[in-house]
Amino acid sequence: MRAAVLHAYNEPLSVEEVELAPPGAGEVSVRLHASGVCHSDWNTVSGATPNPLPAVLGHEGAGVVEDVGNGVTSVAAGDHVVLSWLPACGRCFFCRAGRVNLCSVAMPAMLDGALPGGAIRLSSRGAPVHHYSFLSTFAERTVVPEASCVPIRRDAPLAVAALVGCAVMTGIGAAINRARVTPGSTAVVFGAGGVGLSVVQGCRLAGALHIVAVDPLALKRELALELGATHAVEDGALALVRELTDGRGADFAFVAAGVPALVRRAFDALRLGGTLVCIGLPAEGAEVVLPGPELVRQEKIVTGSLYGSCNPHTDMPLVLDLFMAGRLELDRLVSKTYGLDEINGAFADMTAGSVARGVIDLASPGAS
Amino acid sequence: MRAAVLHAYNEPLSVEEVELAPPGAGEVSVRLHASGVCHSDWNTVSGATPNPLPAVLGHEGAGVVEDVGNGVTSVAAGDHVVLSWLPACGRCFFCRAGRVNLCSVAMPAMLDGALPGGAIRLSSRGAPVHHYSFLSTFAERTVVPEASCVPIRRDAPLAVAALVGCAVMTGIGAAINRARVTPGSTAVVFGAGGVGLSVVQGCRLAGALHIVAVDPLALKRELALELGATHAVEDGALALVRELTDGRGADFAFVAAGVPALVRRAFDALRLGGTLVCIGLPAEGAEVVLPGPELVRQEKIVTGSLYGSCNPHTDMPLVLDLFMAGRLELDRLVSKTYGLDEINGAFADMTAGSVARGVIDLASPGAS
Repeated sequence: MRAAVLHAYNEPLSVEEVELAPPGAGEVSVRLHASGVCHSDWNTVSGATPNPLPAVLGHEGAGVVEDVGNGVTSVAAGDHVVLSWLPACGRCFFCRAGRVNLCSVAMPAMLDGALPGGAIRLSSRGAPVHHYSFLSTFAERTVVPEASCVPIRRDAPLAVAALVGCAVMTGIGAAINRARVTPGSTAVVFGAGGVGLSVVQGCRLAGALHIVAVDPLALKRELALELGATHAVEDGALALVRELTDGRGADFAFVAAGVPALVRRAFDALRLGGTLVCIGLPAEGAEVVLPGPELVRQEKIVTGSLYGSCNPHTDMPLVLDLFMAGRLELDRLVSKTYGLDEINGAFADMTAGSVARGVIDLASPGAS
Repeated sequence: MRAAVLHAYNEPLSVEEVELAPPGAGEVSVRLHASGVCHSDWNTVSGATPNPLPAVLGHEGAGVVEDVGNGVTSVAAGDHVVLSWLPACGRCFFCRAGRVNLCSVAMPAMLDGALPGGAIRLSSRGAPVHHYSFLSTFAERTVVPEASCVPIRRDAPLAVAALVGCAVMTGIGAAINRARVTPGSTAVVFGAGGVGLSVVQGCRLAGALHIVAVDPLALKRELALELGATHAVEDGALALVRELTDGRGADFAFVAAGVPALVRRAFDALRLGGTLVCIGLPAEGAEVVLPGPELVRQEKIVTGSLYGSCNPHTDMPLVLDLFMAGRLELDRLVSKTYGLDEINGAFADMTAGSVARGVIDLASPGAS
């Protein structure tokens, strides 16, 4: 099969023939239909988030189950699935406590370049090729852990389902699971890419009255306004939010970009007791600086959200139901579709900020 | 009457004769029985937290109502009262929303050196002497806003009630109102002074299983163990907490000292998704530094608590009921009692760390 392989940091991905072994026990092979292109992939291309190389990148995908390994009971050939990059173990403290996105088994192993337990099913001329985030979705097919397979309704478009596998769930979940945005509230969202636009939609879904999107790019601000933001600004968010709230500040703030300085700006935009959810991952070692006395006496809440604080198996089908019912405009997030051969162009468009979310079409004849 | 007056920063308080005018409309005069000595007072002595001078300091007091001004309906002469330094307006957004400790009228005016609205009832030889935190409790008598008077049961000792007016409410409230400590949980408390020891008692009351107190002073560690801490350490809290929690970290962490570096240590001591409550006020302009990627993916909650996030009129009587029922050992917090003339010695003992909480006895014959 064909796949996009990263051989060395800061080099283009190479679309080439790769062998995929059949699924082992507890594993599932999936024919991929679509894969989103995400900044996290780019962070590995650049070396900021290392992964053993060579590796097939991609972690935001959906497709159809081809085959299952021994012991797999929750999916069968023909099932449509969103792929979750957090194959929760189901047995650790956090899984048992219902916070499966914090699974203490899956998270630490995510960038080991293998499936849980260490198996590697990808190879090239006999040499191992590493997995990425357990998923490796920049490929025609993949083998993933059973726990990564989230069965979904068959009438949901798989290009949209792919985005639900990461950006959409991360953004909507930050709003509805983590912040628990309330009806009538005011929210400010820093960053209007795939995640930030999903935060905007989550806020709208939850009944927020004012939703202020902040992004330096006019294209993203326009899209934010079309998808539910009531205001979109390049800067001056603090003054606008105060004007909208009788001087108090926002009830909720989100930082959907990995820029530590934005955390401080978001903190300042909150009212007393407001909630700030950090979503965008800053670089390893980056620090967030907050004002000490204000942290105490303003009683603001500062927290993070990983993967939309979701339970993939319950929340992803729910998000797709909302989309199919017309309550979320997830298809609007797909701003450009590429063939697998165009993967490096997709990264170039993303880093240039000229698309909200690029999607690799892996299903159309000749697309890859 | 006699009162302890600060004439200039970094000078001893002067215990001298001061005139107190009768209460104006909406004001109440109180015969003080006891006043705690708090680091916040010291921060004004040192000039770190400025207040117009000269001023009668003290903001942690209890006593008996002497007289009431026009329009006062909630207390009458003879009532025992704890004094609240947050005379909530009752009408702003936060008061109406039930978060009276964030009152947007009272808080900003607290260090203006006057009663709400600007009245000054203290004077010396015809020249105004300023109020402090609306209370000025280092005196035999005081005039305060009606909203500062919290009526309490008459059988509660007023020395204990005085501490409920600040340190006790701040600490217990941080545990039970803000963090909402849960039964069976593990908590770590940095700082074991009057506030930290109250956090420890709040955690015990709420059913915490492990309570780790961290303080550099042996005297305070011993008292923490007597008041409910299950462990008390000078350092090494992180390793101990992990040992107690199967490697996970604490469910709750509290920083009861205004030391920004402790916030980072407390953050690191938490489990994924744990809650950190900052209580001790760092110096103005001080910054708290947190690790960026961990803030996102560990989903820890970082917040502050002002005045124990309390509603003084409901929570302070409740805390005294718990004390009278033997569920809290608040009397143990009074480690030394001083006469008003000994106020500078009380500050010296506090800054030397040789007392958990000093109390000025304003009721005993000749005490002042």
